[in-house]
Amino acid sequence: MGGDHAPAEVVHGAIEAIRSGVEVILVGDRARIQPLLEAAGCSARVVHASETIGMGDDPSIAIREKKDSSVSVAARLVATGDAAGFVSAGSTGAAMAAAALIVGRLPEVRRPAIASIFPTRKIVVDSGANLDVRPEHLVQFAVMGSALAETYLQITDPKVGLLNIGEEDGKGRDLEKEAFKLLSTAPVNFVGNVEGRDVAGDRVDVIVTDGFSGNVLLKGAEGSGRMLLEMMMEQAASDPGLRAMLPTLAPAFRQLRSRVDPETYGGAHLVGTRGVVVIAHGSSTRVAIANALRMAAADAANGLVERIAAGIGATVA
Amino acid sequence: MGGDHAPAEVVHGAIEAIRSGVEVILVGDRARIQPLLEAAGCSARVVHASETIGMGDDPSIAIREKKDSSVSVAARLVATGDAAGFVSAGSTGAAMAAAALIVGRLPEVRRPAIASIFPTRKIVVDSGANLDVRPEHLVQFAVMGSALAETYLQITDPKVGLLNIGEEDGKGRDLEKEAFKLLSTAPVNFVGNVEGRDVAGDRVDVIVTDGFSGNVLLKGAEGSGRMLLEMMMEQAASDPGLRAMLPTLAPAFRQLRSRVDPETYGGAHLVGTRGVVVIAHGSSTRVAIANALRMAAADAANGLVERIAAGIGATVA
Repeated sequence: MGGDHAPAEVVHGAIEAIRSGVEVILVGDRARIQPLLEAAGCSARVVHASETIGMGDDPSIAIREKKDSSVSVAARLVATGDAAGFVSAGSTGAAMAAAALIVGRLPEVRRPAIASIFPTRKIVVDSGANLDVRPEHLVQFAVMGSALAETYLQITDPKVGLLNIGEEDGKGRDLEKEAFKLLSTAPVNFVGNVEGRDVAGDRVDVIVTDGFSGNVLLKGAEGSGRMLLEMMMEQAASDPGLRAMLPTLAPAFRQLRSRVDPETYGGAHLVGTRGVVVIAHGSSTRVAIANALRMAAADAANGLVERIAAGIGATVA
Repeated sequence: MGGDHAPAEVVHGAIEAIRSGVEVILVGDRARIQPLLEAAGCSARVVHASETIGMGDDPSIAIREKKDSSVSVAARLVATGDAAGFVSAGSTGAAMAAAALIVGRLPEVRRPAIASIFPTRKIVVDSGANLDVRPEHLVQFAVMGSALAETYLQITDPKVGLLNIGEEDGKGRDLEKEAFKLLSTAPVNFVGNVEGRDVAGDRVDVIVTDGFSGNVLLKGAEGSGRMLLEMMMEQAASDPGLRAMLPTLAPAFRQLRSRVDPETYGGAHLVGTRGVVVIAHGSSTRVAIANALRMAAADAANGLVERIAAGIGATVA
């Protein structure tokens, strides 16, 4: 029931995921969901939820008070083992609160975090869950991000970098200086400080940072992508030679846009909880919802949660 | 004498700027600079400086101890009124220390800051000088960024946004929550919270943030630009129709790259000091150096320093 285009677009995304082999349980207002399934000739399990949490609700309060909200019911299906994970395109805060309070944190995980995957296959963790963090949290983010890189991106011994304002040792705030020391002895393949520009190139697979900086990096990359596409179109329009090629270039532009567009490529993984949680963009289309469901299914099949539990266990052992 | 390609590339950049009408004093090792000028048939004032500050030196200590370093001598020319400003492609830390200790802060400016201009004509301040800031510093950044938008970009009543993780009021860390309140009553055209994606689009002209987040935004945008260009080339190479067009597309690609490439478009303005200071990229080519010198000349001609002084005065009056 969450997201700007719910429930129709979400249900259609679920139908697409089901047809590609994902086992999906739909949670929400049965009276609105069932007709959409039937019209598409698709049968799927629907679990009714009578309430929804809006963007204006305080997430933690809403999760405690609206026991029958769709995200709460979905999270309970995960907590009871009926589902391996849940996907939400609703309020990110509500999904995180449901994950923390209902699904629960893994033992010894201090702070679940949002791990976003860039079109260049770089993982940025945390990209928005924890605005103020301590150095030891960044170490756990590194372990969890590495587990995701191994299981989801199939990268062996992923390279972990600490987001900073320069590559040299000793750069950054007290947070980065202390985290640098801890990461140097942590059970991850730490390659040192990296910069925003390393979202491209080969220096690093996992970029570790606080949720404020990670969010700035993620959304700044979206903005720059948009900026560059705008400039390309401007330039093509002003150059007669290029203008003549536009009919041929347009499909390539569209394909490029879809590769960098967060509304297409799915969702972000919330890592550190006892089940799989994927947070989709509020403006997700059916394509994004289907991708987010496939991400969640892959995480479950690849044993992401177990891998994270083992990794975090190793840091505290 | 600063930068990866000094002194030759820097001298050639100065020659280019001189030829476009900028009055340039070259500061550094006369024995190395003079022959380059003569070979180019260019006459310019050279002020000798016997020392240089390296990337390995501690900036504040080096500025205090190496009184005859090129950046110190250049800063003294500004302090004495012999020059309206200085440009450096050397250590950013050394240039900032020379600006603070030799040129000096404007009265009532708490923290000089780095204002970077994106290819979309958005100003981000601070983009790297102050990693830990207080809400009242962000208000001064807003005033100084607005002055730069008015004088350098000729924007009337520039729109100022606070970099945050969402557009809604009440988002962010304590820093953003408190700064939001102060900015709402400050003498700037405050439009509220903005996100990284607003480096494109029309929502804002000046983006205010701490130096860590601003640096992440700036370098992340560089990285994304690089990423998108890489993806375009990849796509063009794999599509026979596009591959045939490459000879025609290549110049447009190059032009686009140069519009987004920080090594081409010049430098960043250090705002809040008693003279003009422009910090160029360490890997600046002659084109970038010439652009940085033209930026500094424009700042002087447009009365940037006086405008900032008046704006800051208004906030404390």
